Amino acid sequence: MDLVFSENTKDLKPSAIREIFKSLTDPSVISFAAGNPSPQSFPVSDFRRFTDEVLKNSADAALQYGITEGFTPLRADVLERNKRIFNAGKEFDCAIITSGGQQGIDLTAKVLCSRGDTVICEEPTFIGALNAFRAHGLNTAGVPMCGDSIDPDELEITVKANKNAKLLYLIPTFQNPTGRTMPLDVRKRCLQIAEKYGLIILEDNPYGELRFEGEEVPTIKSMDEDGRVVYCSSFSKILSSGMRVGYVIAHNEIATKIAVCKQVNDVHTNLLFQMVCHKFMTEFDLDAHINKIRKLYREKSALMLSRLDEIGGGRIEYTRPNGGLFIWASLPGCGDHDAFVKKLVSKKLAVVPGSTFSCDVRSPAQGFRLNYSTPPDEQIIKGVNILKETINESY
Amino acid sequence: MDLVFSENTKDLKPSAIREIFKSLTDPSVISFAAGNPSPQSFPVSDFRRFTDEVLKNSADAALQYGITEGFTPLRADVLERNKRIFNAGKEFDCAIITSGGQQGIDLTAKVLCSRGDTVICEEPTFIGALNAFRAHGLNTAGVPMCGDSIDPDELEITVKANKNAKLLYLIPTFQNPTGRTMPLDVRKRCLQIAEKYGLIILEDNPYGELRFEGEEVPTIKSMDEDGRVVYCSSFSKILSSGMRVGYVIAHNEIATKIAVCKQVNDVHTNLLFQMVCHKFMTEFDLDAHINKIRKLYREKSALMLSRLDEIGGGRIEYTRPNGGLFIWASLPGCGDHDAFVKKLVSKKLAVVPGSTFSCDVRSPAQGFRLNYSTPPDEQIIKGVNILKETINESY
Repeated sequence: MDLVFSENTKDLKPSAIREIFKSLTDPSVISFAAGNPSPQSFPVSDFRRFTDEVLKNSADAALQYGITEGFTPLRADVLERNKRIFNAGKEFDCAIITSGGQQGIDLTAKVLCSRGDTVICEEPTFIGALNAFRAHGLNTAGVPMCGDSIDPDELEITVKANKNAKLLYLIPTFQNPTGRTMPLDVRKRCLQIAEKYGLIILEDNPYGELRFEGEEVPTIKSMDEDGRVVYCSSFSKILSSGMRVGYVIAHNEIATKIAVCKQVNDVHTNLLFQMVCHKFMTEFDLDAHINKIRKLYREKSALMLSRLDEIGGGRIEYTRPNGGLFIWASLPGCGDHDAFVKKLVSKKLAVVPGSTFSCDVRSPAQGFRLNYSTPPDEQIIKGVNILKETINESY
Repeated sequence: MDLVFSENTKDLKPSAIREIFKSLTDPSVISFAAGNPSPQSFPVSDFRRFTDEVLKNSADAALQYGITEGFTPLRADVLERNKRIFNAGKEFDCAIITSGGQQGIDLTAKVLCSRGDTVICEEPTFIGALNAFRAHGLNTAGVPMCGDSIDPDELEITVKANKNAKLLYLIPTFQNPTGRTMPLDVRKRCLQIAEKYGLIILEDNPYGELRFEGEEVPTIKSMDEDGRVVYCSSFSKILSSGMRVGYVIAHNEIATKIAVCKQVNDVHTNLLFQMVCHKFMTEFDLDAHINKIRKLYREKSALMLSRLDEIGGGRIEYTRPNGGLFIWASLPGCGDHDAFVKKLVSKKLAVVPGSTFSCDVRSPAQGFRLNYSTPPDEQIIKGVNILKETINESY
């Protein structure tokens, strides 16, 4: 039988990360490739307690179909916390619980963009968002990262060049894959440009709670005055990624449309974990827990940075993130980072190459992503040694 | 700000069922409107035990990111059981775990159909599937139900009239909303027609395990020789609907594409419940549990049917399902069943009108759906009395 796939999905390939992950089945490979939270960050005993309480006291509700928009008390918790911490959530907004942050990105693109429309992105950016956009038949146009962020003038040029641009996708804080944080003045310019050209901004903030250095920078959502900013986040990096609970905070009209599309996508997010999240937000010291994760990631990032500092000689450049999970590295003398990454993998160090995060794979971002949250400390040391040796051999 | 939604989603409205559900906030309203399993069917104590075991012994895995295709042991369980019971799963097939059966329908349409393509459906059919198709910009063309099923000659006429037909969506067993089961000869003809015109069949079988009368009819998937049949089902009606665990059994090539799209949709289905389902399939007498549900629904359907039988006088016609959750009723003397349903709601009985399940809402299916799995027995009796009184008043 000849299979014909849909126009939107026929060219979609499993992401390059998956191929790298295959190398990880070899237990001798050290991985800086994951985007996973540290298992040490999971509050396991509280998960056991809260899960059992829900199943003891509210099993009929937890195991039955629920409301598409989400468990009502959790929607209120999410809005309250994000208003308080990030000033994210205006009088015209509401929260929809999604099956992880990924579903928030996917459904936002689905309701706002038609096949052939363009999403403007930071370059490099999160592969999961790029592929979600591609799977809706959307084009992606990248604005190169330079210094701390993108250049707003470059952004405006790119928007002008893409008449069918509808959405501006940004991860302003502890960006994936670069770990960079967009300065306030650039955030303001992004919002102005979105207003000028009629774009909606999708502000993805999964790492925002994980600041371990420096001062808070206001979210773009905090400056939103008319519902132009759709704000996505999740519990994946602060409680558990496997439970798949995230949320969108958006203008009521957009949120209602997202809910209609969510209903035909998965009806609702698994209800037991929504109820467990509500307990975490009301019967647990979430701030103290997050402070522990921050401390852990501060130490792990400091360890990786200190080892990278020892490579020296100007042979490697890398970001110094103030939070999140990632460092972005590049080799000034290297013309083909993807080839270098392959060499690393052959030496049993897995990292994710820049091409994975690029809008246009024909001109891939030159660099690679290093994750410090997942590998144990001794693997961080060993992995950076492999990186150093490989650089020494190559240049 | 002027919001412009995407071409595919701009006309999507919250389903009529949601409006009826609003009436259900009034506790004096009796509901035959749900599609919910009976809370009595949830194995609560086993859920508590298995959930706690997973969190005690495998928390790091359960709370971390998982594989998009699903928890490997559960994929094997699902394939084994469906092969054994429904002969569903050929050598070219594999199973993908989805976030409920709904996601299986949504992603199958996404990978196989492009905007403007047509999905051929039984009329009336499941609203969640119709709206999933619409949200991908697809047209739906209905083949009217008559007798036990659709007329295959009518099906062929409809296929011929829709040159861009790509998918044939069928719920052959205990159909939603009619409760009808498609006879074997019609199933064979459907497959032949799909082969002749190059359609893929999406066989949705969420109720297949819930037979309480009559003989098993072979699934269409059991007759699939080249991967033309994509088979969807879930644990929603046999363990819990709130946990959102379903699956697709499909040809490897289709399954791979579905997995790529699932990755950008929600990364993976919540992992703890996948692990709990694996326990239900290997450390629990699932067959004995399902037999209890069958007995419960046999009794509840018999009660509703016996009360409907008392209305008499040829004033109401209804199906006598051999399984599943639904009875379909119509009034021979009624020209506008949607108006009659509104009258029922005003008398505090909620049922779902035929228009909800119709491809073309301008010519709605004449009838309404009655659910017997959710209401307690006394409400079944009281509700059918309201129905009888309303018929008496109207005709």
